[in-house]
Amino acid sequence: MSWSGGAQHLPLAVKQRVKALKNLQAQYAQVEAQFYRDFHDLEKKYAAFYQPLFDKRSEIVNAIHEPTEGECQWQVGVQEGAWGEMEREPVGKGQTNGIPHFWLTAFKNVKILGRMIRQHDELVLEHLEDVKIKFSGFEEPMSFTIEFIFKSNEYFFNEVLTKTYQMRSDPDDSDPFFSKGPEIISSTGCEIYWKVGKNVTVKTSKLQKCEGRSSVVSTTRKMPSYSFFTFFYPPDSPEGRVLDVATDYKLGYFFREVLVPKSVLFFTNEASEYKYESSDDEAREAGGEEKKVEVIRNEEPEKGPEKDLDPEETVSLQQ
Amino acid sequence: MSWSGGAQHLPLAVKQRVKALKNLQAQYAQVEAQFYRDFHDLEKKYAAFYQPLFDKRSEIVNAIHEPTEGECQWQVGVQEGAWGEMEREPVGKGQTNGIPHFWLTAFKNVKILGRMIRQHDELVLEHLEDVKIKFSGFEEPMSFTIEFIFKSNEYFFNEVLTKTYQMRSDPDDSDPFFSKGPEIISSTGCEIYWKVGKNVTVKTSKLQKCEGRSSVVSTTRKMPSYSFFTFFYPPDSPEGRVLDVATDYKLGYFFREVLVPKSVLFFTNEASEYKYESSDDEAREAGGEEKKVEVIRNEEPEKGPEKDLDPEETVSLQQ
Repeated sequence: MSWSGGAQHLPLAVKQRVKALKNLQAQYAQVEAQFYRDFHDLEKKYAAFYQPLFDKRSEIVNAIHEPTEGECQWQVGVQEGAWGEMEREPVGKGQTNGIPHFWLTAFKNVKILGRMIRQHDELVLEHLEDVKIKFSGFEEPMSFTIEFIFKSNEYFFNEVLTKTYQMRSDPDDSDPFFSKGPEIISSTGCEIYWKVGKNVTVKTSKLQKCEGRSSVVSTTRKMPSYSFFTFFYPPDSPEGRVLDVATDYKLGYFFREVLVPKSVLFFTNEASEYKYESSDDEAREAGGEEKKVEVIRNEEPEKGPEKDLDPEETVSLQQ
Repeated sequence: MSWSGGAQHLPLAVKQRVKALKNLQAQYAQVEAQFYRDFHDLEKKYAAFYQPLFDKRSEIVNAIHEPTEGECQWQVGVQEGAWGEMEREPVGKGQTNGIPHFWLTAFKNVKILGRMIRQHDELVLEHLEDVKIKFSGFEEPMSFTIEFIFKSNEYFFNEVLTKTYQMRSDPDDSDPFFSKGPEIISSTGCEIYWKVGKNVTVKTSKLQKCEGRSSVVSTTRKMPSYSFFTFFYPPDSPEGRVLDVATDYKLGYFFREVLVPKSVLFFTNEASEYKYESSDDEAREAGGEEKKVEVIRNEEPEKGPEKDLDPEETVSLQQ
């Protein structure tokens, strides 16, 4: 029994009064749920106010807009920080477009993301053009979506990868006092349409072994490869997810509240206040061993060059 | 230099663009500050919606209103929890008024408060009738006040003890990106007008020692006594505070967000979701040694009964 605090032996009359208080607390939870809905609407309202600033950021990052001298002058109060201490290099204006690898660099400066992003992921993430947070509509169930917007690239056909986090927005029988407030209750990624041989979430190796005297059997092993992009996969896919559910939810919230709104501070690595707090569990999850699930198929002996993976084959891994 | 992330050697043109992004980030902080003001107003608006429920709670706790049978029936969805599992005792309705020691019991079920509250504090806190959170007005600097409302009692003259937490509500030169959002920047307690000999935050002991052959010098030592009520004292008072500043602020926020709105769940000890996370530091602070600051005064030898402390003497300790 979890009861303690010296209140076990209360007279029945007092217990009845406490029951009345608990009923009041359940009524409070109903009003609180409305508060959280209003709060969500306030966030949406401000998302619209922030959007022009995010649009301008994207234009500068992607070389659509070249900032004027005035836009590059430090504003009153803006500290140069480590950035300002660096030696100035000769002007090379025009030689480099925009801010190359802006999002990749920002991501890598977040500890847990830095661990998730492997070398093969970096080549893909260099094509990441923008990241946006979209809130659910006013009449829809509460949720938010992280949109990862990519330039046309050699890895997949998608222009946008999405991850949506569904939230519980009301107290229910399992939590009549709404003790956790609106919390993420599930997440949904998206299907990635990898181009042939470009799926960085699997790796193939070919083994040859002799069977009998004259035949050589070539065996292709497809192994899940530790990758940031499993972030978009369902948790029960063979590639699995590199994150446990709790960390996935925490990371989703971190994208929404911190990383997307304040990405430049991560690019410059000045965001020490926002260090994503990773527990040992997360460290283990994110830095741990690659999953040992193997897909082994016997194939006909062949002599030609190695074939690229067929995308259908790869997709079948996810079923 | 705190810089990392492989962006040290960017061409000047790129650095200039990053400066433009940092300026955009400072503009974002200005809009965000307005968001936090609107959020504060939303909290104030809902505080008014919650108030009738809190008033009813107070009436039941303090025996002003006896809940009806209907008010004591479990509402749909409200779990009885540990509370419902207890054996029922014979009806004693009317014998006990209200819910005795409601706030004291709730406080003691919060780990850090349980450590702060000593036996001599309990006798005082039994007279605590209600705890309220008051937000600063619409045009005032952002702050909130915790009001501890006491029944007339033998310990002090105050009817209300207050603790106010002042908050920073705008980005400033020291934090142009508003990285911490609105944060508590200071706290102010109140003067407690202790009745004669009733100040639980000091203890006196009398020592007698011989000086020469014929005279006995009586020495009264006033020592700060570890007490919950130092929560209301300025940090530089001789009694000091039992909490370091960071923990004080965290506790203030906990009162506001959790303990006051959901006190019944602490009274019944069902609020495990809300466990106040105390670090080792806090544990050391809150459970640590009593302060050894001593105020020693030589007094004339006397033979009469021990005098009660004069309240002025006690107050002088706080200067």
